[in-house]
Amino acid sequence: MEDTYGNLISSLVTENDKRIVLLVMDGVGDCDNDGNGTALFQADTPNFDALARKSALGLSVPVATAVTPGSGPGHLGLFGYDPLIYKVGRGVLSALGIEFALTPRDVAARLNFCTLDDEGNVTDRRAGRISDDENRRLLVKIRERLAPPDGVEVLLETVAEHRALLVLRGDGLDDNIGETDPQAIGVPPLCPTRPPHGDLKTAKIFEQVAGQIQKILSDEPKANMILARGFAKVPDWPTFARRWKLNPAAVAGYPMYRGVARLVGMPVVSQPTTAADICAETAQALANHTFIFAHFKYTDKTGEDGDLPGKIRRIEEMDAALPTLLEAKPDVLIVTGDHSTPPSLRAHSWHPVPVLMSAPHLRGGDGPRFEEISCRSGQLGTVHAKELIPIAMAHAGKLEKFGA
Amino acid sequence: MEDTYGNLISSLVTENDKRIVLLVMDGVGDCDNDGNGTALFQADTPNFDALARKSALGLSVPVATAVTPGSGPGHLGLFGYDPLIYKVGRGVLSALGIEFALTPRDVAARLNFCTLDDEGNVTDRRAGRISDDENRRLLVKIRERLAPPDGVEVLLETVAEHRALLVLRGDGLDDNIGETDPQAIGVPPLCPTRPPHGDLKTAKIFEQVAGQIQKILSDEPKANMILARGFAKVPDWPTFARRWKLNPAAVAGYPMYRGVARLVGMPVVSQPTTAADICAETAQALANHTFIFAHFKYTDKTGEDGDLPGKIRRIEEMDAALPTLLEAKPDVLIVTGDHSTPPSLRAHSWHPVPVLMSAPHLRGGDGPRFEEISCRSGQLGTVHAKELIPIAMAHAGKLEKFGA
Repeated sequence: MEDTYGNLISSLVTENDKRIVLLVMDGVGDCDNDGNGTALFQADTPNFDALARKSALGLSVPVATAVTPGSGPGHLGLFGYDPLIYKVGRGVLSALGIEFALTPRDVAARLNFCTLDDEGNVTDRRAGRISDDENRRLLVKIRERLAPPDGVEVLLETVAEHRALLVLRGDGLDDNIGETDPQAIGVPPLCPTRPPHGDLKTAKIFEQVAGQIQKILSDEPKANMILARGFAKVPDWPTFARRWKLNPAAVAGYPMYRGVARLVGMPVVSQPTTAADICAETAQALANHTFIFAHFKYTDKTGEDGDLPGKIRRIEEMDAALPTLLEAKPDVLIVTGDHSTPPSLRAHSWHPVPVLMSAPHLRGGDGPRFEEISCRSGQLGTVHAKELIPIAMAHAGKLEKFGA
Repeated sequence: MEDTYGNLISSLVTENDKRIVLLVMDGVGDCDNDGNGTALFQADTPNFDALARKSALGLSVPVATAVTPGSGPGHLGLFGYDPLIYKVGRGVLSALGIEFALTPRDVAARLNFCTLDDEGNVTDRRAGRISDDENRRLLVKIRERLAPPDGVEVLLETVAEHRALLVLRGDGLDDNIGETDPQAIGVPPLCPTRPPHGDLKTAKIFEQVAGQIQKILSDEPKANMILARGFAKVPDWPTFARRWKLNPAAVAGYPMYRGVARLVGMPVVSQPTTAADICAETAQALANHTFIFAHFKYTDKTGEDGDLPGKIRRIEEMDAALPTLLEAKPDVLIVTGDHSTPPSLRAHSWHPVPVLMSAPHLRGGDGPRFEEISCRSGQLGTVHAKELIPIAMAHAGKLEKFGA
């Protein structure tokens, strides 16, 4: 799929010193809560609301209508990379999530510890959801005994519970490897050397490694094998700096978000987690950068925990911190989320995400508050997340005219 | 054109026992009527309005902006099949309209009886719009005298007035046949064997059949020839059941709508025509199915007749019947049309169609009524018809997350 829209915008970019801030309140969108409104609606947010009345409001579709995004695709969209075109393999996403620095010589895969019966059939694809500690113990055991194939390093990292990251590092490796997770029980793991086309050199290397791991784990009662999914190399995409002619920086306290920033070549300049620190660090970073991606995790965390009062409180914390950021006078400020995380669902959702864009050259008439119902009828309308950077670039005078 | 969106959604589908109802009030959308509002606005609909205030409202674009859809494309969009990708030939649509059961060995075409002059030029492309009876008489005459080519059955059915259906049935037939309707008068019918590429075996068979028909009709004063358009085979599409992992059923009293349901493999379980019967049969079918397509014809019929009071009354009939359907507690209920049919236009139109979606996980703030102006500012926004099933699937918990 060709990136027609992204390439068009990129071709129109002209550099200037205007500064854009993308403040991501992760998972900020919500559903109604028993007739009492969304978290944004219920929160007391005088600073956001005052800003909303002189900003553009709208809604953002992260990936596509009705699609619930993971954090990787959600952020790529916000960075102006269509997540249906710029696809990240599960192995790479696993590495991002634990901030494992992948190199171009690496092939990454997501591993599950699993349980096989005496006949070699899978009886539990998650090995009874073993603990993180048990996961770490098993990886130590494998690392100690594994004899890596010639010229290849085998790197293993705990993710959580039954989940781990495998990285094969070496020259000339590819990701043409069959997933071994049969996605079913009562059958054996699939063979990694089954892709019908292409070089199977790396697939054979993985097959050998998986065989050794099976022997090393053979005396384990539960986690006696691994299943691998999403073999992937780190993608070779245009960097954010080149694509938008911006000098970007990430202010992000959690590994996944630093990881996805680095995936588009965005350096991480600070790792704060609280609203106050994020706004202060963003204000400071604006002295040296024309683009700041600032990430606030807790609006998503509280949503995932089903904690509506917590989510409301976290929004109010960001509202209280906002003036510090505004004092640094970004030329364009986007406040939005990478997806919605309604506490009533305890999960990411497909609902379009509220957007506030403070910028010059607006049309007026938005408000009265920064919440879903005001956003629904705002001047931005409902756009795709990948369109937000372009709109911000236009408001910042960074896009040239198309055609004479 | 690849079905990127449909394939994406289909790849995310996970099965559960939640039940979705799509209630199509055919042609329900309207224009304003002399300042008195649309048919929905003028109708007294206490049940729809109460539902609207706790539902999501929006507008649906059946095919593309400014495009007036026929019934086939209008319904395919509602079934989640982009009508610009899933195209149905006119021959197949003619068969659907009279509920003629096409087989994979069939090639269907839409016929017009026409009038040729002594030089063989078309003088009337509709043969003076002959009556249905006259049409039937002519087909009896042709059937009696036609000698079908070896290995081919020639099936002919009256549609209405000058319109008929032709089906060639046999092994290895294709639809690579040139349309013979010149779309002009004063010129002869076009030659069916003129496609520049491909096997012309079937084109030659049709040429032979058309030649015989011309001889058989040569003594007729008006309808002395036929013109053929839209040669098409029944399409080989993924079934609705497989595409959405739903167990679907159609409740539809009119042939065209049963036909378009069958085109996507949806069985017809009941054929009611009144609002009361449709709601009762839908409620009953919900016991055994996870998806019901229920079709109400009269809102379109009255629109086509230019009968605004009739259209209002038909809407009120459905409103009165609605509680029977609601008592069966579908998890998601979509109420919409396949297009608008304004009585002032006496025809299908391009206007986006009002949508009401009753579902869990909504945002609130919609209403106060189920009519075009409330729908315009509803939380669904303006979507394409093909997105409605995906949105309903999301609300029913039937779509997995995209990316980790």
